Amino acid sequence: MEKKFQNHIISNFSFLKDKKLLLATSGGIDSMVMTYLFHKLNLNFALAHCNFQLRGTESNDDETFVKQFAKENKIECFTIQFNTENYSKEYKLSTQIAARKLRYDWFHELIEKEKFDYVATAHHLDDQVETFLINFSRGTGLDGFTGIPSVNGNIIRPLLIFSREEIEEYAKENQIQWREDSSNASDKYVRNKIRHQVVPVFKELNPSFLSSFQNTLENLKQEQSLINDAVQNAYQNVVIEENNQLKITISTLLSYTNYKAYLYQWLHKYGFSAWDDLFDLVHSQSGKQIFSDEYVLLKDRAFLILSKIEKKENEEYIINSITEKPNFPLNFELCNLSDISNSLKNIIFVDESKIQFPIKIRKWKEGDYFYPSGMQGKKKVSKFFKDEKFTLFQKQDTWILESKNEIVWIIGYRADDRFKIDNTTQHTIKITFTNEKNI
Amino acid sequence: MEKKFQNHIISNFSFLKDKKLLLATSGGIDSMVMTYLFHKLNLNFALAHCNFQLRGTESNDDETFVKQFAKENKIECFTIQFNTENYSKEYKLSTQIAARKLRYDWFHELIEKEKFDYVATAHHLDDQVETFLINFSRGTGLDGFTGIPSVNGNIIRPLLIFSREEIEEYAKENQIQWREDSSNASDKYVRNKIRHQVVPVFKELNPSFLSSFQNTLENLKQEQSLINDAVQNAYQNVVIEENNQLKITISTLLSYTNYKAYLYQWLHKYGFSAWDDLFDLVHSQSGKQIFSDEYVLLKDRAFLILSKIEKKENEEYIINSITEKPNFPLNFELCNLSDISNSLKNIIFVDESKIQFPIKIRKWKEGDYFYPSGMQGKKKVSKFFKDEKFTLFQKQDTWILESKNEIVWIIGYRADDRFKIDNTTQHTIKITFTNEKNI
Repeated sequence: MEKKFQNHIISNFSFLKDKKLLLATSGGIDSMVMTYLFHKLNLNFALAHCNFQLRGTESNDDETFVKQFAKENKIECFTIQFNTENYSKEYKLSTQIAARKLRYDWFHELIEKEKFDYVATAHHLDDQVETFLINFSRGTGLDGFTGIPSVNGNIIRPLLIFSREEIEEYAKENQIQWREDSSNASDKYVRNKIRHQVVPVFKELNPSFLSSFQNTLENLKQEQSLINDAVQNAYQNVVIEENNQLKITISTLLSYTNYKAYLYQWLHKYGFSAWDDLFDLVHSQSGKQIFSDEYVLLKDRAFLILSKIEKKENEEYIINSITEKPNFPLNFELCNLSDISNSLKNIIFVDESKIQFPIKIRKWKEGDYFYPSGMQGKKKVSKFFKDEKFTLFQKQDTWILESKNEIVWIIGYRADDRFKIDNTTQHTIKITFTNEKNI
Repeated sequence: MEKKFQNHIISNFSFLKDKKLLLATSGGIDSMVMTYLFHKLNLNFALAHCNFQLRGTESNDDETFVKQFAKENKIECFTIQFNTENYSKEYKLSTQIAARKLRYDWFHELIEKEKFDYVATAHHLDDQVETFLINFSRGTGLDGFTGIPSVNGNIIRPLLIFSREEIEEYAKENQIQWREDSSNASDKYVRNKIRHQVVPVFKELNPSFLSSFQNTLENLKQEQSLINDAVQNAYQNVVIEENNQLKITISTLLSYTNYKAYLYQWLHKYGFSAWDDLFDLVHSQSGKQIFSDEYVLLKDRAFLILSKIEKKENEEYIINSITEKPNFPLNFELCNLSDISNSLKNIIFVDESKIQFPIKIRKWKEGDYFYPSGMQGKKKVSKFFKDEKFTLFQKQDTWILESKNEIVWIIGYRADDRFKIDNTTQHTIKITFTNEKNI
């Protein structure tokens, strides 16, 4: 058993050697087995534990357990406490989604701040089966069936090929300690039903069910890649990007008998829901429009034209002083020098003396240029967008912070070199941007 | 309930009006409800009942029940008895596959002989869910998840949107009689487990599970259509059909990062199983080959070349007399004129006096021509293949029956006009071809 674990890590995760790793550790059996395993392999890692404060003292005991374990084994350990309930209410998210967002946002913060190379989570094969069947029970498409990837950017899931049974055996053999019931998922009831009532039937019908399931996942992933090819190929034939709009040429679109499938694939990320009406647009009279929260699709003679709904009234925000709380989710904070850490996507540190109030937040416009931090010289913002492969709508969504007609920050993406702190800086301003949608 | 049934038929199966229909009737609740419903709608139909003789007297009682019902209601009824056990042994098929093959072959025979427009089977939504989950339990890909189509050529499934519960209610309301347990499927044990232990959990977790499942199926079907586009598109870019071979240009193939998915989609119908070896062929040295039962894929410098394995020794069969049993699955039978029915795909009737022994069975060759029955004049066989959209390998698989260097029959596809019976015919020869693979 141990050999299988180690061989898997050695052969499929060889890139972890000499990397700085962060293990997401709830204190449950899966993450403790993962920790033990990484320890055995002498990998260089720290632990990260989220206390979502959803189960009172139990949550706190989990935190204590992980901290204690880390201390005893001399492993660096990061912990954080989230007010998950409040957060989920504020952003109108389910507890589950809120917890996931808080967790991964924090991981990414730690990656940047502490220079980790990868974060590992302890998802295993039974998690995959359960998620598949939960999605099946709710109704889904192929994307609900393809599972979570074992490597996704800097998030890795090294236990994905192992069953719960194997992990339990390994924990027993190696007398690994763990905390029961450390899941915070609000889909717990559903997951337990699937785990205890459905999956055992499949395992009874097919003794090698889990391995068949792995093949199924692999097949579906391959098929997903074919879909991506078809979607991209047709997009190139049918869609024109111009003037901040996507123009879909109806005649070319209709050369695909399954054009509805293409429209869905191209447009579902823009939040449309009235799909039948949207499909009908192809044949309806010019001028008809279908709306999502932020986008509109217009039938305009030979085209369907997708554009962002402009909210003109919100286009500029003036902030008069550092103490003013702007009508925009941007926070200011005067810092001691000792508090300064690296800039993050949503946080920058600037020299107070270089900023001149009032400052302004506005959308990008043609002709804008700035001095990207970490680079020599100036750059057109449009060139920056192009290099970063921004989509049309990402460009439109991006906010600019400016002081005296100079760009201070492409908010959420890149600071300007002219305003950065240096060894002459007396006072530092920390600017935090918390607009959910743009980060 | 009744209205929903009728509206569904009226709005989605309006093409059935004035058509000649054949209802596949096992005697079970589903097919009896379908029969009742078609009767209510005054559609023009006959019944077809297969007795697979798998459950002794029970099978015979089912047959009697259907016949009796048809008689009482003055409905035309076709019945047939199959020795399913023998057939499945002879052709090394599972009982389930054998029964399905016998059943659909017979339906197609009846369609041609009796000039039916459509055959209707009584599959319903719970069948679809169960099949999905059975495939899931065994391991599958998207094709195991997309369900059976409601219209597939001349096979229709008008009850596919209805649940078992709705059908049961309808049967009760209308006091419809049926026979319990008329299924002959060998996957019965598996299906029952799924039906009684798995599906109820999903229905409990999601009260509108069946309708969510319908959406899932619809999504997956749409996605399947995108895959087909991708597969076809890449085929056009990468594959050359020439000299009875498929040539895959490796350099173009490798421009697709997911080239394995494409190779699988193109080649799986040729019976390959050593997929990893096959994928490796792309990078292996020239001359290496991978075999399936009937095909070989050869690495030849810049190409992978697929060709049929030639079995030279079997290429010609000489048959010396009408009583000779050829070493080839072709049967002869002298008929009375009264026995003559229409020619079928695998049966033709010819005038004995026009045939001259020895006759020969051979593969098609360039330059062959014949006088297709029902047409004026002669036609090149190559042109016939083209018009019938034969694939390369279908052409290679096709056998020709010839007498005195004249083509009598493109076996399994088209008889020649010169040998047909007419009102001067004294004796008729019935020729039956039963090669499983070619029909």
